[in-house]
Amino acid sequence: MIQIAILGLGTVGTGVAKVVAENARQIERKLGEPLQVKTILVRHFKDGPYRQLMTDDFRKIEEDDDIQVVVETIGGVDAAYDYTRRALEAGKHVVTANKQLVAERGCELLVLARRKNVNYLFEASVGGGIPILHPLTQCMAANRIDEVYGILNGTSNYILTRMVRTGAFFTDALREAQAKGYAEADPTADVDGIDAGRKICILADLAFGHQVDPANVPMEGIRKLSLRDVKIAQRAGYRIKLLGRALRLPGGKRTAYVAPHLIAEDAPIASVEDVFNAVMVRGNATGEVMFYGKGAGELPTASACVADVMECLQVSPRREEIGWSPETEGFVDPQELQTRYYFRIEGSLTDAAMAFGQVEVLSEDGETAFLTDPISGEDAARQAQSLNVLACMRVLP
Amino acid sequence: MIQIAILGLGTVGTGVAKVVAENARQIERKLGEPLQVKTILVRHFKDGPYRQLMTDDFRKIEEDDDIQVVVETIGGVDAAYDYTRRALEAGKHVVTANKQLVAERGCELLVLARRKNVNYLFEASVGGGIPILHPLTQCMAANRIDEVYGILNGTSNYILTRMVRTGAFFTDALREAQAKGYAEADPTADVDGIDAGRKICILADLAFGHQVDPANVPMEGIRKLSLRDVKIAQRAGYRIKLLGRALRLPGGKRTAYVAPHLIAEDAPIASVEDVFNAVMVRGNATGEVMFYGKGAGELPTASACVADVMECLQVSPRREEIGWSPETEGFVDPQELQTRYYFRIEGSLTDAAMAFGQVEVLSEDGETAFLTDPISGEDAARQAQSLNVLACMRVLP
Repeated sequence: MIQIAILGLGTVGTGVAKVVAENARQIERKLGEPLQVKTILVRHFKDGPYRQLMTDDFRKIEEDDDIQVVVETIGGVDAAYDYTRRALEAGKHVVTANKQLVAERGCELLVLARRKNVNYLFEASVGGGIPILHPLTQCMAANRIDEVYGILNGTSNYILTRMVRTGAFFTDALREAQAKGYAEADPTADVDGIDAGRKICILADLAFGHQVDPANVPMEGIRKLSLRDVKIAQRAGYRIKLLGRALRLPGGKRTAYVAPHLIAEDAPIASVEDVFNAVMVRGNATGEVMFYGKGAGELPTASACVADVMECLQVSPRREEIGWSPETEGFVDPQELQTRYYFRIEGSLTDAAMAFGQVEVLSEDGETAFLTDPISGEDAARQAQSLNVLACMRVLP
Repeated sequence: MIQIAILGLGTVGTGVAKVVAENARQIERKLGEPLQVKTILVRHFKDGPYRQLMTDDFRKIEEDDDIQVVVETIGGVDAAYDYTRRALEAGKHVVTANKQLVAERGCELLVLARRKNVNYLFEASVGGGIPILHPLTQCMAANRIDEVYGILNGTSNYILTRMVRTGAFFTDALREAQAKGYAEADPTADVDGIDAGRKICILADLAFGHQVDPANVPMEGIRKLSLRDVKIAQRAGYRIKLLGRALRLPGGKRTAYVAPHLIAEDAPIASVEDVFNAVMVRGNATGEVMFYGKGAGELPTASACVADVMECLQVSPRREEIGWSPETEGFVDPQELQTRYYFRIEGSLTDAAMAFGQVEVLSEDGETAFLTDPISGEDAARQAQSLNVLACMRVLP
């Protein structure tokens, strides 16, 4: 009998308890013995099926030698960080879906885990139930990873899908997402690119082996996105998607950012709709591979946590180093990247051509929408100075 | 310094040597020491960069205690089986891309590997460079896997793509694939579903935990596929794809088969084109997740082999059981599955309705093309007995 503890009993915590119970047979067959949730840390006791397991005292878990793995589902940094540190110090494996904690302090927690000869695993922190971190670090280990990008936030992708399909304005699509439970009352983290930003940081950390500090990563969401641009893009054979993107650059440098992009409609990621997520990884041997599925939700995310629990127990004492260097040197402002840009301006094609030379016109309906040749973000801003810019977005190469 | 041997120096074998050399820095950073190809088994000596490493005597590898991992890239069953067995007996890990050997004798070789406390890994045998077996068995370990299906053969997918895009006949598209090096002079294994069949067997073995014998799996390819059906399907909002498909059935039963299917055009797998592969896995917690990328080719396949080599060395002494039961009991003829069927008949809608009751008409242009309600394959055959059937395919639910 292997015993674990869950910290927090929100969506993911409840899901972990459910998956352990519902798939007990599959799990036991693979582990060779049953897996059991022994203790659940809560702030307030509530009646329900797990009432017997609840405690509000973390020391009950910390000091319990029967508990081999702690699943942290509290979220945020403060308490989650403190409990994670203490659990690792106590020689327990820790598994989490907490992208904020991993993005901000994962490097340090991995060092601690290594020192205590236990695992700190967080597959569920990116892409929910989609296997992505493990394939990236293990299955693609023989590659030099050159680029990672993806639709990393289901809520904003749902909103964009509604705008494309039904011609809804952003505000109406957001209200619809909230009514369906896909978006929170305060949707900031989702629609302003913060959630996607944390995830692209974790992907970049693992892909390039250096800490990418979320504070350095420009995060632009979809709040300012106009229905007009959605329609122009669509008519011209593009889709607009909110992407997190990280690139390896020459000279050991790297960059990462979150922003809406125009994507050619025949690219595989362009057809990822609704609340689905997809992550594309480009390795120098494998080429582009894509991972697709539901990026959130109780059971998908929980099942990724439970798989990590099983991994902790199967690969004993611990998996080889999946950490990264704390060194943030070499992070470059993504404005230096050369990409094509989409502009919509209050002005004529002549205005566009005077600013950018040759451009590809997408629409000339009162305003002018066009694509530039590949240029840096700095050049794009400088050359557009004389224009009345209504919208500006990168085009995914 | 970690030393390995390669058996065979064809496409994959050469690729393994290249990946080890080109990505030496990435590999050393992860392993903590350099990885080196010490010996390559060939039948005939050839000049070239690897001349110094060649031997034609397997005992040079078998008896060399410096060699920790053997990468088998010979293909087929006879010699490959013999060498694999001997390498495992000698206490060496074995890694392969050999889908035929894994599908036919993988179960037995995994038992031997377990007995000798070494790994037998074969990520590259399905999907080339796309991580799929590892995510299926490890990352989705907390799921009960209910279904796996995929576009598992790049050659036939390329041919189908050309038929859709350019209206080419099968024979012309095949010649084009051969000219581009995507199809062999003898394309049987690719276009007759045998290659896809071996891969769906391996996926089913791992997903359901029981041996699925390739001899029991009906394999239908695309050789008889008519351009007419491709066009009718496309106009009706479907794509035709060659799928390998395996399902868990009630009562501990399972089935698997390979056949062309109609797929609704908005399904993610419908837009997988050219030589790309994609595998969809449905878990009871995670839902559907899809893995996409180049399913073949020298470097993608080789990089998956090298990642398995690294896995062998990092997870010491061996990864927990990824094997399956040799028990083939419980395999059910896929004719028992209930699916919608596509028919094209020499006859009228009245003929169709008399045979099948209510049907959905796709085309009535001289012939009649229609979709039935979900029925078993036996019922489909029985009810169609009175009809002059020109084409019959399953529709993916």
